[in-house]
Parts: sequence; C-alpha cells; structure tokens
Amino acid sequence: MPSYTAPVRETRYVLEQVIGLDRYANVPGFENATPDMIEAILNEGGRFAAEVLAPLNRIGDEEGCTRHDDGSVSTPPGFRDAWDQFVAGGWTTLSAPEEFGGQGLPQVVGTAITEYLLSANQAFEMYHGLTQGAIASIVIKGSDEQKQTYLPNMVSGKWTGTMNLTEPHCGTDLGLLKTKAEPQPDGSYKISGTKIFISSGEHDLSENIIHLVLAKISGAPDTVKGISLFIVPKFLVNPDGSLGARNGVHCGSIEEKMGIHGNSTCLLNYDEATGYLVGEPEKGLAAMFIMMNAARLGVGLQGLAQGEIAYQNAVTYAKDRRQGRALVPDQRDPDARADAIIVHPDVRRMLMEAKAFNEAARAFILWGALQVDLSRKSEDEAEREAAMDIISLLTPVIKGYLTDKGFETAVNAQQIYGGHGYIREWGMEQFVRDARIAQIYEGTNGIQALDLVGRKLGQNGGRAIQAFFRIVADEVNDARGNEELKDFAAALEKANGDLQTATMWLMQNGLANPNHAGAAAYPYMTMMGIVCLGLMWLKMAKASAAVLANGAEDADFHRAKLTTARFYAERIMPDTGALRRKIEAGADTIMALPAEAF
Amino acid sequence: MPSYTAPVRETRYVLEQVIGLDRYANVPGFENATPDMIEAILNEGGRFAAEVLAPLNRIGDEEGCTRHDDGSVSTPPGFRDAWDQFVAGGWTTLSAPEEFGGQGLPQVVGTAITEYLLSANQAFEMYHGLTQGAIASIVIKGSDEQKQTYLPNMVSGKWTGTMNLTEPHCGTDLGLLKTKAEPQPDGSYKISGTKIFISSGEHDLSENIIHLVLAKISGAPDTVKGISLFIVPKFLVNPDGSLGARNGVHCGSIEEKMGIHGNSTCLLNYDEATGYLVGEPEKGLAAMFIMMNAARLGVGLQGLAQGEIAYQNAVTYAKDRRQGRALVPDQRDPDARADAIIVHPDVRRMLMEAKAFNEAARAFILWGALQVDLSRKSEDEAEREAAMDIISLLTPVIKGYLTDKGFETAVNAQQIYGGHGYIREWGMEQFVRDARIAQIYEGTNGIQALDLVGRKLGQNGGRAIQAFFRIVADEVNDARGNEELKDFAAALEKANGDLQTATMWLMQNGLANPNHAGAAAYPYMTMMGIVCLGLMWLKMAKASAAVLANGAEDADFHRAKLTTARFYAERIMPDTGALRRKIEAGADTIMALPAEAF
Repeated sequence: MPSYTAPVRETRYVLEQVIGLDRYANVPGFENATPDMIEAILNEGGRFAAEVLAPLNRIGDEEGCTRHDDGSVSTPPGFRDAWDQFVAGGWTTLSAPEEFGGQGLPQVVGTAITEYLLSANQAFEMYHGLTQGAIASIVIKGSDEQKQTYLPNMVSGKWTGTMNLTEPHCGTDLGLLKTKAEPQPDGSYKISGTKIFISSGEHDLSENIIHLVLAKISGAPDTVKGISLFIVPKFLVNPDGSLGARNGVHCGSIEEKMGIHGNSTCLLNYDEATGYLVGEPEKGLAAMFIMMNAARLGVGLQGLAQGEIAYQNAVTYAKDRRQGRALVPDQRDPDARADAIIVHPDVRRMLMEAKAFNEAARAFILWGALQVDLSRKSEDEAEREAAMDIISLLTPVIKGYLTDKGFETAVNAQQIYGGHGYIREWGMEQFVRDARIAQIYEGTNGIQALDLVGRKLGQNGGRAIQAFFRIVADEVNDARGNEELKDFAAALEKANGDLQTATMWLMQNGLANPNHAGAAAYPYMTMMGIVCLGLMWLKMAKASAAVLANGAEDADFHRAKLTTARFYAERIMPDTGALRRKIEAGADTIMALPAEAF
Repeated sequence: MPSYTAPVRETRYVLEQVIGLDRYANVPGFENATPDMIEAILNEGGRFAAEVLAPLNRIGDEEGCTRHDDGSVSTPPGFRDAWDQFVAGGWTTLSAPEEFGGQGLPQVVGTAITEYLLSANQAFEMYHGLTQGAIASIVIKGSDEQKQTYLPNMVSGKWTGTMNLTEPHCGTDLGLLKTKAEPQPDGSYKISGTKIFISSGEHDLSENIIHLVLAKISGAPDTVKGISLFIVPKFLVNPDGSLGARNGVHCGSIEEKMGIHGNSTCLLNYDEATGYLVGEPEKGLAAMFIMMNAARLGVGLQGLAQGEIAYQNAVTYAKDRRQGRALVPDQRDPDARADAIIVHPDVRRMLMEAKAFNEAARAFILWGALQVDLSRKSEDEAEREAAMDIISLLTPVIKGYLTDKGFETAVNAQQIYGGHGYIREWGMEQFVRDARIAQIYEGTNGIQALDLVGRKLGQNGGRAIQAFFRIVADEVNDARGNEELKDFAAALEKANGDLQTATMWLMQNGLANPNHAGAAAYPYMTMMGIVCLGLMWLKMAKASAAVLANGAEDADFHRAKLTTARFYAERIMPDTGALRRKIEAGADTIMALPAEAF
C-alpha cells in the first residue's frame, strides 16, 4: 500500500523563498494570504489529502464507478463520505470569488493544495477540478442571473460541473460537432446530441450537476464558428433555487479505462434537454477556452502530482529494499549482507531525475498560477498584460511537458520496484496508469505543441516569447557573477540559446511551409519545457544560495537544492542541443512517404 | 478490437536481402532453411498468430488466469484449445534439436516466428517461451538421462518449463536466496522454499511442468557461489516415461498484475519437493545464465513485438480517423470536411519513429539470432568466437534498449488514438501495459545496463566492443563512396564516435571509481542501442539502394527504406551527443546527496 505525505516544506519554500509571495501583498486577494495563513491551509489540506483521500485511491482503482440500469452512477466506496468532508472543510471554496461564497484566495494557494489532492487521489479530485473550470466560464461569460442561480452551490460543492466538448467523431476538431440547440419561445434551448469522455459526467456526490455543453444552434454555420455554449443542469433549478424536474440528459454508459477508475467517464445522451445560452451565440469556443485553459493548468499539475507520489514511494522502497552491494566498498553497510538499493548509481539516477523534475515543476506551476492571479487582479495594467502573455504562452508547456515528464517519472518510480512494481498491490502501476491520461485529455500533448508553435509563439508579433527570453536572460545575467550560480547560469544560457535558435528557425521556415512548424512542434515544446524548468532551478539555486550565504538553520535542505540544480544542468539540459537538431531537420523526411508506405 | 497482420514481407527482406541467409547455407542446420521453406513457415506461422492467437489477446487480458482452491490454475478461455493447435502444428519444435524431436531449424527462423506469436498474444507465447529457456539449459547442462526423460516432451509441447529464480526478498541479488536442497540417499534432493513471479508457473495447458529451480544445497556457501540448479517436475516421471506422483510444488497464489493477465504469474511453494541436480553442484548460476541469456533475447523481441502491433493499429487509425485539416492546402482532401490524421506532421512523427524503430529492431534481433546460431553451429572456430563475443556484448542492449523503445512505441501508438487510446475496448492500452513488463523482468533494464558496462565491455580485454566498432567502421567505410548512403554513413560515424568517446571515458574513469561506470551505464546502453539500430539502418539502406540500382519491381518498398533511414539519421541519432555529455558528467553529483535528502 503506497503512502503519501504532502510536501508542505517544498511548497512553502517555493511560495516564500522562490516566488516571494510577500512581494505581491498589494494585489487584491493577496492581502489575506499571509505566510501564517498559507502554512495553516497547506498543513490542513495536506493532512486531508493524506489521511482522507489517499486511502481511497486504490479502492477507487479496484472498484471503479458503477452505472445502474436507470442511468445513475455510484462512485467507489468511501468517495461520498470523503466528498462530504471535503465540502464541510470548505476545500471547494479556496480560490473562488467571495461574492459567490468563495474565500477569494489567490489561485497560487488553491493550486498548491490541488497538487496534494491530485497526488492523493486524482480520480477524486477530478470531480472538484472540472467544477472549477465550469465556475470560471460562468463567472466570466454568464449572465448575472446565471451566476446567482448556479455559482453559490457550485462554489460550496453542493453541486458540481462538467465540460462537454467531445463527440464520438470529433475531439480535437470541434467544427465537426453535431449536438444541436433548438431555440424555444421562453429563451431557452432544447439540446440534443451525444457527448463522450465526460469526466465526472454522472455520479452520486453532489445534488446537481451543471453541464457546460458545446452545441450548434439550428441554422448556425456548421463549423467552429457556429458553436455556442450552454448550461444544461441535470436537475432544472426552480426560481426559488430548489431543484425542479430532471432534465433530459442521461448517462448512457461509463467507459472502461486504463486508469482513473474512480472517476466516472460518461457517455451523455442529450435528448431535448433544456439548456441556457452562456454569453453570445456562436461565441461558444471562446467561452470554452476559459474553462479549457484553467483545465490545462490543472492537468499539468496532475503530471507533477503523480510524479510526486510515485517518487515518494520509490524513495521509501529504495531505502528499504536491500539488494546487491554498493559499487564502492566504503559505501557498504558492514552489518548487512546487502545494501539498500539507494546506494546504486542507476537507482539514484532515477530518483534524482524525479526529484529534479518534481521540485522544478512545482515551482513552475506555482509561478504560472501567480501569473494567472496577476493577469486577473494586478492593479497595474502592464503587469496584467505581461502576466497574461506569459501564462498564455506557457499553458501548453505546463500541460504538455509536465504531463510527459510526470508519466516518465511514474514509470521510473515503478521501475525502482523491480518486479514488485508490476504487481497491483504495491500501487506503483496505478500511478503509471493514472498519469497516462494527463498526456491525452484536454487536448493531446501533440495539440499542446501545435498550440504553442502555431498560435502562441506568433501572438502579438511574438511579444510573449520575446518577454520570456528576456526573463531568462535577466536571471542568467543576474547569476553570472555569483560563484555558486555561474556554472548553472552558463548551462541555462546555452539551453536557452538552443531555444532561441530553434525559434529563429521556425520564424524563417514555419510560415513558408507550415509542415515545418508542425514537425518541429513537439521537440520545440519539450525544449521549452527543459528551459522553463531550468529557469526554475536557477531561481531556486539563487534563493538557496542566498539563504546559505546568510547562514541558514536548514542548510542541508538548501545545499540539496544546489546539488539538484547541478544534476539538472549535467543530466537534463544537454538534451536541448539534440532537440534543436531535430527541429532543424524540418518536415521533408517526415512527410515524404505516401500513406500506403505505412 | 485491434487487428494484426504478420509482417512477413519485412521479415523476408531482413533474412534474404539484409542478412543474406543464403550466405550461411554451409552452416549445419541452415541447409534446410531455404528461401521457399522459410517463406512457407513465415506465412503459416503468421497466419496462426493472426487468426488463432490474436483474437485471444483481449480475452486473456480481461479474463486472466484463475487459481482454484486446490492450487490448480485455469488459463483464459480459448488458451487450451489454441495450445493444442499450437502443438499439433509443430510450432513448439522449430529450432529445437532434431535428436529430441525438434526440426533443428536455425534460431533465426524460430526468432522470426516468435515475433509474430508475441505480437499476437504475448501472454500466450510466454508459456512456450520460458520452455525454450528450460530446454536450452537441459540440453547444455543436463545428463543424458535427464535429456531423454524431459526433452522430447518439452520439445513437443506436451510438457512446458519454467525458470525459478526470484524469492520474496531477492531478485537481482541471488546470493540472498533461501530455497534449500537436502541431498537424499537416492541421489535426488528435497527442495523447500518459496519462489515468486514464476511466469507460467502453474496452468492447464500441458500435462506436466518442468520447473528449473535455483537452490542452495545444505552446507553450501550462503552466497551466489553456493547456488545449484535443479529440475523439479510437477509430476514425477516414471522410468517408463509415464507420469507418477504429484510432486511437492504448489501454486500458492497468482499475482494481480498491470498486464500480461493471460499468463499465470505464480508464487510457488516447494515443500520437500523432489528435485534433480542439473550439472555440477554450486554451478547453478552459470547454468541459469544459459536460460537467462536465451530469455533476454526473447524479452527484447517482446519490445519489438508490442511495438509492431501497436504501430499497425496506430497506422490503421491514423488513416481512418478524420480530424482537422492538413496544414498545407494542397494536401487536403477536397471531398471531405476533415483530413485523415496521417496528414498531420506530429502524427507522422510518431508513426515514423515507430516504423524506424520496428524495422531496425527486427533486423537487429534477427542478426543477433544469427550470431547465436553461428556461435553454436559454425564450423569455423574464429567465426564461432566472434559471434559469441558479439551476441554476448549485445544481449543486454537487445533486452534493455529494445524493450524501452518498444514501450515508448506502444505509448506513442496509444497517443495517436487520442482519448480512444485510453479506453480498454480499443486495445491500445493493453499493448502499453503488456509492453511494460519487458523492461522489468529477466533483469531490469538498469541491470542490463550494468551487465553491459560492468561485465561485457571489459571481457577479454574489450575484444567484443572493439570488434563491434570495427563492424560499424567497415560498414561506414563501405558506404562512404555511395551517393545514396554517404549522408547516412556520416551520421552513423558521428554517433559511433560519440559511443567510442564514451567508451574511452569509461575506461579511464570507471575503474578508478566504479560509481562513474554505474552512473554512466544507462545512457551508455541507450547510446549503444541507437548506434546498433543505426548500423541496421545502414545495412538496410545499402541493401535497398542496391536493389533500386538494379531496377527493382517493388521500388516503393525500397525507397521507403531509404526515407526511413534518413528519418533515423535526422531524428534519432542526434541524441548520442547529449547522452555522451551525460555520461561524461560522472557520478559525483548523482551520488552527492545523503539518503535523508530524498
């Protein structure tokens, strides 16, 4: 049975010493996020995740969800009770707006807690996580009446939400969708169609489920330009706020999946279900992107979260399991016949890769969440714009690169267990199966790469990527004169140089032949991920070097940061050169074969 | 439901045009392996795999094996009948020695067929595959009586075999094993202990199961030097060859695993079971390595096999699924609203990587199997020694690198399916789960890397690695003057240069500090894998260029080889530079942190 401890010390390090949250106390909503307050929330949230959610993770995997003949769905044993505790503890309300019952805390705090929830039980957290995306869409695009009708109960966790995009014949290409919306005399719509892969689409945790559904109003263009967004509640809501009639949306089946069995992934049949337009007609895609961008950051966080819990358990095993002798005699335990496998360099390699990824990924996501906060709440317009530029640019990297690495980390952690890693009862293989979905949903990682290269790089004349390069260059320049940091700064400068060269190549070749951009997209996203985590390692190394220079009490903690940064420079950053060469190879060979040759 | 077609055309290409099997007609056993004979065997074996075994693959996964209260184990529905057909068709006998009822065909032919069996149904093939390792041990180390008693029925498939190494507290470190062997007056032994992770350990396919078991004879050193190998049949065999008493070995449980559910992975309790010493006492490890090396090649083949079937189904989906528009207008289908996703460069990237891997891996394994044949059967002693050197050096690369890449290929093939790839009914996620075990069993891939760097590189003063470098250099030199090949030759020369530089670094640093060798092992194995498959692409490019120069009928097939070789040079080989830099970083940083810092 795997164990989990929320890495509160690591989170606080990022918030307090790397990001320096106190520097943002003047941003609305940050005034309540004092270090004491944050510490209390992290400790309590970490305890809830470890004690309530983690023990249900394997049960959720083994038992899964059950659809009954009437279309209702039961969640795994224990989920309902845990949800009630989750709601009672106010955990659904952290970063939600105060006017709808939320605590109005910064996203960066909610994100920190969400990591713990996802590590402990990804399938459970998803009931909550999708709701947050639905809330964000209604907050921004909904009418006042819609906000008053739906948001308080969604914020409190009494109701949950879903996102309905995919249909059997279309996922990425939403222009093909067939779900129809017929206007009714009362201003509502009748929604008919079939949606698939709807996470948390039907379940027994909440009293109502608020589906956000993409559909085409009769007569609208049969393309992406004809898509509108609708609220379709499972139960209609009476004017007094009480639940009314059951709406015409039903779960036709739940999918048998590779993992996240504790979450009900539904096929939903809409049969003249009553729906309410959100925002303007035929502007549905823009509204959906609000949810989607929030969801993509959440999915990136899943990569870290699975990487973290897999790493924690790999460490436990590597310290406990004795097998073979240390290669160097003086590292051998004289009182035992075999050494703990953590002495073996190849086991260390996997642990160090995991550690170097998890710690930088945490910094990257929290830094990204801070950009979300600043983009919404900063009182300085230039700061809002700069933050929006950066988070918009980096969202596909957070989603794509962190889920790739999270999966790889889970696979390596499983590997450390040897044969036991393949056996279900040890729990490591569940982390691999659960981590796998994050590379696929909310836009496959290939789609993320195309979003980065095809849309984000060129936006506003490349303003965001130029700003990103300046951020890296400033950090590098600042570190150059520091004896502790200069080697790392040089390595990051080289990696960033590869990224800049690749960007130039894309600018020169991608427009002339878009296939060059398409063929370059994935290695480019990976390279940018390496540079982003390198940037975080430089920030962490700088923070820890400063603490050490001042004579830290917890010097071991900070020295480990400097060592892990060095590992990152030695063992991860060299890949950027190879990635650049792959990009510069262009698309000609990739596209050369006729389809019949495959 | 996934489909499978045995890639007979590809196998024949390797055997006839790349390896040139006709050049070995003078080697004993090869005289029967005429092109017509091989073609007939490949077609028939491919048909059996596709029509009989492939349809059982998902059933095996869903139903798994069932242990009954009496310790007996049922295989999934259909397995028993398929086994009977398998035996009746003589498929168990292909490469087995003629004196025990085998057909005496070269390993290279048996290996080719085994790929098909593994693609179609890895869990099923393992009942057969482990038996081959057991046969090899008895052939080489068994007494004449043991050979006569066990081999004919094992060759015919009436009986099967297993390998029993692992115990709950030891896998890699066999010196720790506790299973005991008490000598009996009649020359037999009483074997007592617990073995775990025994593939095909108990089942209903064969009349008897011949367990090969590592144990320590009472009084033997309690280290690897005290290990002996025993035959422990499930049913004792009477002098007339009929089955006698049930022996004291029973299945205590079957493991719940991530995949290969159709194979029964057993915990076996030995309770004073009657066993017979194989070979000399306390030489068990050497005898076991005969099985293990055969098994490791078979596991490497599993990497290719899962990569191949996953690729085939990804190709089918990529040609069928329409989503989005080709980036370049003239590649769009004017009669459809969306294009088949095979037009998208990022989908192509994954398909080309799979194709480039599978085709080179097939060549590499068949070339490796040829070395096994030559090492055993060549009448030229120098050729025997050279072949033994090479296959001994490359066995860990075949096992480690090909299973890493096979898993990666299965993951990418699943990715091409988008959300559908995560759903069980499409079958892609099973390939991922099944492929995963091959990186773990028969020595984890980390152990393979250590075997390569710690044992194989230095054997006989580095004779094998020097021979390998000469093989690569000769192929490169031979290709340099050919306009079609010179770019590829230059790329391979560069990659091989990185490997040579890394080898030098290891020679200079690995002895002084073995942790440097340990820390370098994994990237070194990966780099060597890249060079080995690069060597195969050069061989294939050369073969196809020659055919094209002579005006081939199937020019498209051969032009695709040249294109795929170019893809390999552009998109895979650049990694060797990064790997070299990682190796040269040494072990200091990896080993720097105290265990408490993790």
